[in-house]
Amino acid sequence: MKYNQFAYSLPTPQQQILELQRIKMYPVDVAQYSFDKLTRRIFRQFFPDYRSQAALETQLRNLLVDEQQNLFTYLANIGDRFEQHAFYNVALQLLGFYTPSEFSLDDPIATMKQLGLPFVDKLYFNTESLTSAVYQLLNTPSKNGLTFIDNLAARGYYTINLSANEQQRPLFFNGKAQATFSADQLIREVVYVESDLDTDHDGQRDLLEATIIRPKPANDFIKLPALYTANPYFKGTTDTPMNEVNVKLAVKPTGDARENQDNFDDFPTFDTTNPSAALTNPFANHSSVAEPSLIGTVTLNDYFLHRGFASVYAAGIGTRGSDGIRTCGSPEETASTIAIIEWLHGDRRAFTDRSRLDEIAAIWCSGHVAMTGKSYLGTLAIAAATTGVTGLDTVISEAAISSWYDYYREHGLVVAPQTFQGEDADVLTNECFSRQKDAGDYAKVKLFYQEKLAQMKHDQDRETGSYNHFWDERNYRNNIDLVKCPIVSVHGLNDWNVKPKNVYKLNEALKAQGIAHKVILHQGQHIYINNFPSLDFYDLINMWLANKLCGLENHADAIFPDYLIQSNLDESDWQTPTNWTGTKQKELSFAKDFDNSANHKTEFIDDGVKAFHESGLSDLAWEEAFINQDERFAKNQLVFKTPTANEERLITGRPVVQLTVKSSANRGLISAMLVDYGEAHRLTVRPQNLELQARQLGYHGPLETTMAFKPDTKMTSAKLIAKGHLNLQNRNNAYEGQPVEPNQEYTLDLNLQPTYYHLPAGHQLGVILYATDMGMTIRDQNELTYSFDLENSLLKLNLGKTER
Amino acid sequence: MKYNQFAYSLPTPQQQILELQRIKMYPVDVAQYSFDKLTRRIFRQFFPDYRSQAALETQLRNLLVDEQQNLFTYLANIGDRFEQHAFYNVALQLLGFYTPSEFSLDDPIATMKQLGLPFVDKLYFNTESLTSAVYQLLNTPSKNGLTFIDNLAARGYYTINLSANEQQRPLFFNGKAQATFSADQLIREVVYVESDLDTDHDGQRDLLEATIIRPKPANDFIKLPALYTANPYFKGTTDTPMNEVNVKLAVKPTGDARENQDNFDDFPTFDTTNPSAALTNPFANHSSVAEPSLIGTVTLNDYFLHRGFASVYAAGIGTRGSDGIRTCGSPEETASTIAIIEWLHGDRRAFTDRSRLDEIAAIWCSGHVAMTGKSYLGTLAIAAATTGVTGLDTVISEAAISSWYDYYREHGLVVAPQTFQGEDADVLTNECFSRQKDAGDYAKVKLFYQEKLAQMKHDQDRETGSYNHFWDERNYRNNIDLVKCPIVSVHGLNDWNVKPKNVYKLNEALKAQGIAHKVILHQGQHIYINNFPSLDFYDLINMWLANKLCGLENHADAIFPDYLIQSNLDESDWQTPTNWTGTKQKELSFAKDFDNSANHKTEFIDDGVKAFHESGLSDLAWEEAFINQDERFAKNQLVFKTPTANEERLITGRPVVQLTVKSSANRGLISAMLVDYGEAHRLTVRPQNLELQARQLGYHGPLETTMAFKPDTKMTSAKLIAKGHLNLQNRNNAYEGQPVEPNQEYTLDLNLQPTYYHLPAGHQLGVILYATDMGMTIRDQNELTYSFDLENSLLKLNLGKTER
Repeated sequence: MKYNQFAYSLPTPQQQILELQRIKMYPVDVAQYSFDKLTRRIFRQFFPDYRSQAALETQLRNLLVDEQQNLFTYLANIGDRFEQHAFYNVALQLLGFYTPSEFSLDDPIATMKQLGLPFVDKLYFNTESLTSAVYQLLNTPSKNGLTFIDNLAARGYYTINLSANEQQRPLFFNGKAQATFSADQLIREVVYVESDLDTDHDGQRDLLEATIIRPKPANDFIKLPALYTANPYFKGTTDTPMNEVNVKLAVKPTGDARENQDNFDDFPTFDTTNPSAALTNPFANHSSVAEPSLIGTVTLNDYFLHRGFASVYAAGIGTRGSDGIRTCGSPEETASTIAIIEWLHGDRRAFTDRSRLDEIAAIWCSGHVAMTGKSYLGTLAIAAATTGVTGLDTVISEAAISSWYDYYREHGLVVAPQTFQGEDADVLTNECFSRQKDAGDYAKVKLFYQEKLAQMKHDQDRETGSYNHFWDERNYRNNIDLVKCPIVSVHGLNDWNVKPKNVYKLNEALKAQGIAHKVILHQGQHIYINNFPSLDFYDLINMWLANKLCGLENHADAIFPDYLIQSNLDESDWQTPTNWTGTKQKELSFAKDFDNSANHKTEFIDDGVKAFHESGLSDLAWEEAFINQDERFAKNQLVFKTPTANEERLITGRPVVQLTVKSSANRGLISAMLVDYGEAHRLTVRPQNLELQARQLGYHGPLETTMAFKPDTKMTSAKLIAKGHLNLQNRNNAYEGQPVEPNQEYTLDLNLQPTYYHLPAGHQLGVILYATDMGMTIRDQNELTYSFDLENSLLKLNLGKTER
Repeated sequence: MKYNQFAYSLPTPQQQILELQRIKMYPVDVAQYSFDKLTRRIFRQFFPDYRSQAALETQLRNLLVDEQQNLFTYLANIGDRFEQHAFYNVALQLLGFYTPSEFSLDDPIATMKQLGLPFVDKLYFNTESLTSAVYQLLNTPSKNGLTFIDNLAARGYYTINLSANEQQRPLFFNGKAQATFSADQLIREVVYVESDLDTDHDGQRDLLEATIIRPKPANDFIKLPALYTANPYFKGTTDTPMNEVNVKLAVKPTGDARENQDNFDDFPTFDTTNPSAALTNPFANHSSVAEPSLIGTVTLNDYFLHRGFASVYAAGIGTRGSDGIRTCGSPEETASTIAIIEWLHGDRRAFTDRSRLDEIAAIWCSGHVAMTGKSYLGTLAIAAATTGVTGLDTVISEAAISSWYDYYREHGLVVAPQTFQGEDADVLTNECFSRQKDAGDYAKVKLFYQEKLAQMKHDQDRETGSYNHFWDERNYRNNIDLVKCPIVSVHGLNDWNVKPKNVYKLNEALKAQGIAHKVILHQGQHIYINNFPSLDFYDLINMWLANKLCGLENHADAIFPDYLIQSNLDESDWQTPTNWTGTKQKELSFAKDFDNSANHKTEFIDDGVKAFHESGLSDLAWEEAFINQDERFAKNQLVFKTPTANEERLITGRPVVQLTVKSSANRGLISAMLVDYGEAHRLTVRPQNLELQARQLGYHGPLETTMAFKPDTKMTSAKLIAKGHLNLQNRNNAYEGQPVEPNQEYTLDLNLQPTYYHLPAGHQLGVILYATDMGMTIRDQNELTYSFDLENSLLKLNLGKTER
């Protein structure tokens, strides 16, 4: 275990004193304090939860400075210097590490180094070095991953030390907003934002319900920034059947599918040049505002509630409490998403209820907004950013879609998110159309909605899988030039739900526009990562938001690495390369560069659907069996393995498989997997608990369990690195169908999902060529044969420098 | 899905009105109200979270009374009667059910019946029947399992409807305490209770840290009852290695092991006849009391915090913050457990800190205490009950140990709790000895503790496994005659950690004493069951505590079934037999009554340890393989199966296997499993999520996910019903070693764990005879052969009436 801090910097000694005074760790008249008096004052401050002298004494006696002496007696006789050894023995105990099981009192510095914790490298501390050591200690991760000052805050430090007038207002330390707000004083409200949309065709502007949880500031002059999460699942979901996937691969018409106009998105809108009437009575009676209950919050937002950032949740058009219908990924959905921001920024009006009589303004809001969330939630944050809406100062987007075609389609094929075979835009639309739950409300729009849904089923075109107008409208990257705010993206390199090319392509596009884009890639699947102690994620986002939303000069742009990538070999190794694409290219010939190239088969038959159904395997179990060359599926694949590597390789960016291939029929699809072969205790892609309820996000706030990826207890022999799928009829691009002649050779490039993978020495790099992917593509029960000209087939890799 | 309500009863019409007035649902002058005015008032009260007339209107319009009409227009023209059909259509929507997916507006009564919800059986409601319908509706489970009034309370009903003077004080409705207290107003304190113990031999009374979370009452004259959980894990645990289990089965000395006195428990105590000095200054300055953080609460207690019951947590002697050492299961541990109750009842003093200078009394407490908790936590509640301590009015004990011998030993053998092979009293002692975490504190007692731990390792005697003085002291049932308070026990029939005979034997003993003992048996393992909507568990406990702690006359004793047992065939079938032991006995001969009796093998060899280690299987996977007659272990077992049953059988109480057996050596152990053989989608023993964060325990309180046991998606062919283990040297009892002669025949009774199992028609009842149980017994790598005289071997069953 190692702690990584990317959001910490040590200021000048003078600045350290000023900041320590600001958080009341140091007295205003610190210059009058003798060394011993100051030292005792500091350690008293480390126990805000113990409020008598005797209780403090007990706590000090519990801490050993060495095998013989406890901190109480040490402080009683401190003199004019603090020994480094004594200080860090105590520091490690204060941070939650136990001796002797986790560190030895004989050598605390060895443990500090091993854990990656900062320390002052002097044998004895005088006032200046003690100040530096205390400043650092407060900003050092505890065993539970939160900094010591964050843990002190959760234990009531700011409640005890700040005057009533100083409490419940923003305060910054080391460039981060402090947890000065208590969970006991939250205000919860529901408002109805008026949009310019009329997606349910009732002749009235769609009202959009927004739920607000906000810290109660010390007075009404304090305006707070807002973290806004657009969450289509927020008001519940409906059970919706999946589309059928056991269907034939279609022979598609030729031509550019984008030119086939669809009819789905013809919604009336109201005048947007004058987006909202003047505010008539923004100071509505707040006691008549509804109070939300059963709020499914986002933990990152909860964390920031304590730090003076309001949480705002809205589910958008067609969800329970709002008007309109769902339109999954459409421009109308985006407009409904940013309407909330426009209200927060004062550019749009909202009402206290759906009578549209009493207006209510976000008078508590500073007008500075960031969007947060994972998956569909993070996707809508990207959607909002691509409008350039005023008030949206940044986006923290996790596992987000940047083009819906890259979620439900690939290279001219219907390709499902993992474990959601048959899901499509229509399914997700209906799942989130939670207005259905209010029977009286639903009755008003039922017929119109069903008509629209039928149109959507048609327009999404599962038949051909081509990139058409419907999908083009749902490609947020088309509007990349409108993006004004910097973006932070978090994505799992093992996320086969929202696949990594969504963030990769977004990154390429934003770089081209010169927009700041910070990319964090982890070794998980489709998850949040805020509770991983190996990375100071909360602090990074805190530093970022303090800068972007509160205007604090903390050098966030420079300090936050452009790429922060977790190694697949060591969960606490977070690397900071300058790009994702690597430093050099390498091409491997399928005919020459693989172990078994000489006598390799050159064709396979794609008749595995029946065997898959007979096996009873889940999609995931099939994938594992397929990668491990299970004999039931062996004839449906060609497997190539490189010779065992002598040294570690780092595979970066998007691997490309260039193939010369023919199909035995007038249609076909090609899939490829890149695989790491070799026995190893690999990190499990699901995080495991480190400690239940190990930390508290603020004073009287929620508890959080810490987690980490750990090496699998059992050896595994293979792991998927990347995969990709392509319709032979779309060998040039996703929008243009081209005929396939049986047994005619075609050469094509199949771009796999991007990766960042350390292939250890002693392993083999594998490529599996196949067609039907039971968990992702449609399952066409066929007997097509695919043949390859291996002499004219290549694996093209990007490689990075291994830093180990 | 079916809802079961055991804590609900319908009072007289007059009483209904009084209660509805008490909770402000009905006005004081209800007699002056016309039918339509009253009706509209009632439905307004169902939306406490919507606080304007317009918002209310929206909500009423969202509800349909039939396909054509919504509730708003219906109420506008209500006249003088409410149609049943309309009422229950609205009721189902209010309870959270959706139409048309979950019920049809054409026949709401069919759904009410199917879900097991109460309804008024009249076609039209006048004032009296409407009152009854409203009273019932408020007490009817919502989809999320909480009653409608509980959900209203979480949405602010009481906050809105009670005056400041009425809030934050206990209020009862239908015999249950209402959620009138808000999560925003909790007081958190740490105190140090002075015990009569000196388990760490430092010459001072052991101080015991207690953590209090209590609702803030409206004024200081309101005294609250307390739910106290003694939780040895509360202050953390230490990693402790397990004992070695791959050891030889010992040939033990003859004689009564109870007579071998041990030395572990010789702790000095202070004068207990005068347990505590007079209170000198009980009104200590509360601002100097420490505030606890990172509190690992028990959800049942959290639920009751909103209902006016304080939560008290204490970890006991030897835990972090307290004095003393751990002594797992000893009388000293029990004394330290009840010291907290004595303080709460005013019979013992506590201090604000460890200086022992400032006393603090539980002046907020009514002196009425119940203990709660699961596993070790529930065990200490049983321990406390067996002292008869004043102030302990009842115990809600889940998955509790009633004798530590029944946890770590069985019939003269070392037998582990499942998945904890090698654990023993010494391991658990050290795990919970969290004083080790405070290095300065630990240094004071380290040598003494290590000496005591070594003594404990000796006295627990893993060598023989006999019931000796050490275990006799840890058998709480020895003091059953001291129990004064009624007890509620909850236990999983699939709990192989704390095995069901712990609650079975406790039940037998309490019945013999005439002490009320309510037993709830579920189909899970070692879990809490408060979040299972099929049972009104919270309400049952609420009714019970309102009666036992608050003195409310709600007929709890009569209403609460003596046995409440979940069927293994249907998770929402909760049965209420009059006993656990069944109504008749049946004996099956191993020679005649099993399918394959005629040509059955009569011996097996117990050499499976090597194969087990080679298999790499976990303990649990081994058990599954063993039951399914995996060929790797087939020679280590004899399997008997009855003919396929024509009708369902209910197996109750403790099955007994009477065996005539000989061992090839001068030692041996016998194990037996009772197994259900037959293909079926059985309920999974792990509960599955129904809905994430589906309900809120009180106003601004924690959210809770609902769960249920669901039928396994895959068919399984066998399931363990019960098992048991016995040392041949203890064929008569657990304390007296008797020699075993090689190849000498012995007849013995092996009592299996108690069960309550519906064996479906078409299944076979199986018995597996074997010796070493890889997951539970020691693993003696031997080649002993066991032979049976099947003519003189019987399976003795208790059978109950199948009510299906």
